Amino acid sequence: MEKLTIKTSTHDYQVVIDKGLRFKLKSFINPRYQSVYIITDSNVATLYLDEVYNTLKDDFKVYYSIVPAGEESKSSHVYFDLMTQLIEAGLDRNGLIIALGGGMIGDLAGFVASTYLRGVDFIQMPTTILAHDSSVGGKVAINHPLGKNLIGAFYPPVAVIYDVDTLQTIPFREIRSGYAEIAKHSMIHQPPFWDQIIPVTLNESLDQKTLIRDLINGINVKAKIVEEDEREADIRQFLNFGHTLGHAIEAELGYGKMTHGEAVAIGMLFAMAVSEKHFKVDLPIQAFLEWLKHNNYPLTLPNLNVNKLMDRMKRDKKTKNQQIKMVLLESLGSPKMVDMDDVILRQQLETFLESMVIR
Amino acid sequence: MEKLTIKTSTHDYQVVIDKGLRFKLKSFINPRYQSVYIITDSNVATLYLDEVYNTLKDDFKVYYSIVPAGEESKSSHVYFDLMTQLIEAGLDRNGLIIALGGGMIGDLAGFVASTYLRGVDFIQMPTTILAHDSSVGGKVAINHPLGKNLIGAFYPPVAVIYDVDTLQTIPFREIRSGYAEIAKHSMIHQPPFWDQIIPVTLNESLDQKTLIRDLINGINVKAKIVEEDEREADIRQFLNFGHTLGHAIEAELGYGKMTHGEAVAIGMLFAMAVSEKHFKVDLPIQAFLEWLKHNNYPLTLPNLNVNKLMDRMKRDKKTKNQQIKMVLLESLGSPKMVDMDDVILRQQLETFLESMVIR
Repeated sequence: MEKLTIKTSTHDYQVVIDKGLRFKLKSFINPRYQSVYIITDSNVATLYLDEVYNTLKDDFKVYYSIVPAGEESKSSHVYFDLMTQLIEAGLDRNGLIIALGGGMIGDLAGFVASTYLRGVDFIQMPTTILAHDSSVGGKVAINHPLGKNLIGAFYPPVAVIYDVDTLQTIPFREIRSGYAEIAKHSMIHQPPFWDQIIPVTLNESLDQKTLIRDLINGINVKAKIVEEDEREADIRQFLNFGHTLGHAIEAELGYGKMTHGEAVAIGMLFAMAVSEKHFKVDLPIQAFLEWLKHNNYPLTLPNLNVNKLMDRMKRDKKTKNQQIKMVLLESLGSPKMVDMDDVILRQQLETFLESMVIR
Repeated sequence: MEKLTIKTSTHDYQVVIDKGLRFKLKSFINPRYQSVYIITDSNVATLYLDEVYNTLKDDFKVYYSIVPAGEESKSSHVYFDLMTQLIEAGLDRNGLIIALGGGMIGDLAGFVASTYLRGVDFIQMPTTILAHDSSVGGKVAINHPLGKNLIGAFYPPVAVIYDVDTLQTIPFREIRSGYAEIAKHSMIHQPPFWDQIIPVTLNESLDQKTLIRDLINGINVKAKIVEEDEREADIRQFLNFGHTLGHAIEAELGYGKMTHGEAVAIGMLFAMAVSEKHFKVDLPIQAFLEWLKHNNYPLTLPNLNVNKLMDRMKRDKKTKNQQIKMVLLESLGSPKMVDMDDVILRQQLETFLESMVIR
């Protein structure tokens, strides 16, 4: 069992990583909670809801809600429905919410927890690799038709319980999506653990030892950054490496067409290309591109409108005064926030889309 | 000019009280904010929006939204519409929201600020006496059809700017509503400032000196309590004196039928009656009742269903494990949280409604 402790401004919480944790939940949940309310999605419910429910039912009043799988559930509509269900169940401030699922569920259930009765405790139980990222750090949100995660809060969980058994049932596409964020963590951290990632082959035989090693390294990078800058005033923005274009691509394609990690991978390639020009340095773009190809990341895009992508990037939450800010790499492991010139950025984006992605 | 500083876990903020502050706003707003977004209601907009807008327009990009006056605007629908308007205006994390209005606007605009882009700064500009209470302490929320303030957050403003000129335009009913909360503050605080309240006559000639004195005393009581217990884990619950039944009456009548303060005044009478029985003490119930009558507080209610009121009280946010908790007075200035026995409470509520209110 691996354990990390994460400090926040309001409380410390543990990230526990092990096999079979869904059968040992009781030992991580304070008995003072009278009720436990599980929020999960239709995919995860089929696989693990019964097991989690049965582990808890003798010691707590247990309720649950199942929302449709997919990013569409991070909507104001589903959010308000969940609020109604919690109220009707009579969950009070002495209750605990469990977010059982991937990043979508963590964000949605976390935002519900942050605003139900002005905030109740919640536990993240991630079931995807991607959620190693989103489950740590307290960012919770729902989407707005005009942009991703525009409605949300900083609201840390009281624990992250990561049962790595659940990762064996996720589709290959989701493994790729999650590893893109691990690769990101490897690139922005000093010293980079990049050298460990580049040899990894993502397929069904990916061994659990390698996976757990990389997850822990990824969580460690994230934990150190969010401890130092919980509310994204400064260095936490480094975690958005690859996300400026990545989010814009996701939004332009329509959520769900490409996984988050796949879009971020393309965003990272772009951010590396911009970095090389900006800092006049050499970065391992080719090595990263080869790794993405080797692992079957999608590297073609439909003909996206550059103006629309620029507009999306301007609506990014990091944007201040209409000026796009990007996380660039001065070298591997040395991220910097840079204010971008609109004209230059548009030109580089055009070149990038032509030369690298659309083929 | 009166100034108080309030400490919170994240930052300190000032409460500034004076005449004509709406014309001096600039000196209280950090020039680093690039944009200012005013949220107000249709009543307040007619009176003060132009003045506030004109005071700011030379130094900031100023936007505004006007929502319909009345508690109905504290809805998920209006909340989500405001989010859309902020996004469309391009407000970023460097923007500031101003809540210009009474408690409804403070709660609504505050909740918008707490969740827009995971939180932007906001200033409370209360325009009612009642808002002396709600504008201080960081509680923000919207209503759910099943109960008041069930969706919200603890999110302190960066300043409270209280222009007491604006209080001269509020209707007499609103003065009564606000003074009920001042009376509450006077009763739960040691030493009580009750003796100052009891001689006050609430009518159009209420002099501003008395009003400002009582507002400052009220805010001081509130400030001390919320500084000690920001997230309502303990003594902050004392501020709910009179609110257990008060909220239930508001909800049963339908919001807007009786003002918040009028309902709380009846709730306080009930809490005093319960306190006398529980602690076997004498409290100045008759003096308070006379003061309420003298000032034309409504003391009759339609025939409310006791079971429904009990159910409403069980859905109160203070409730834990279905047991109603009430704030009682051991003596004037000595509030205590007490777990209530359902059977006894129902009986006392029946007696109270018969003997005191319905006539």
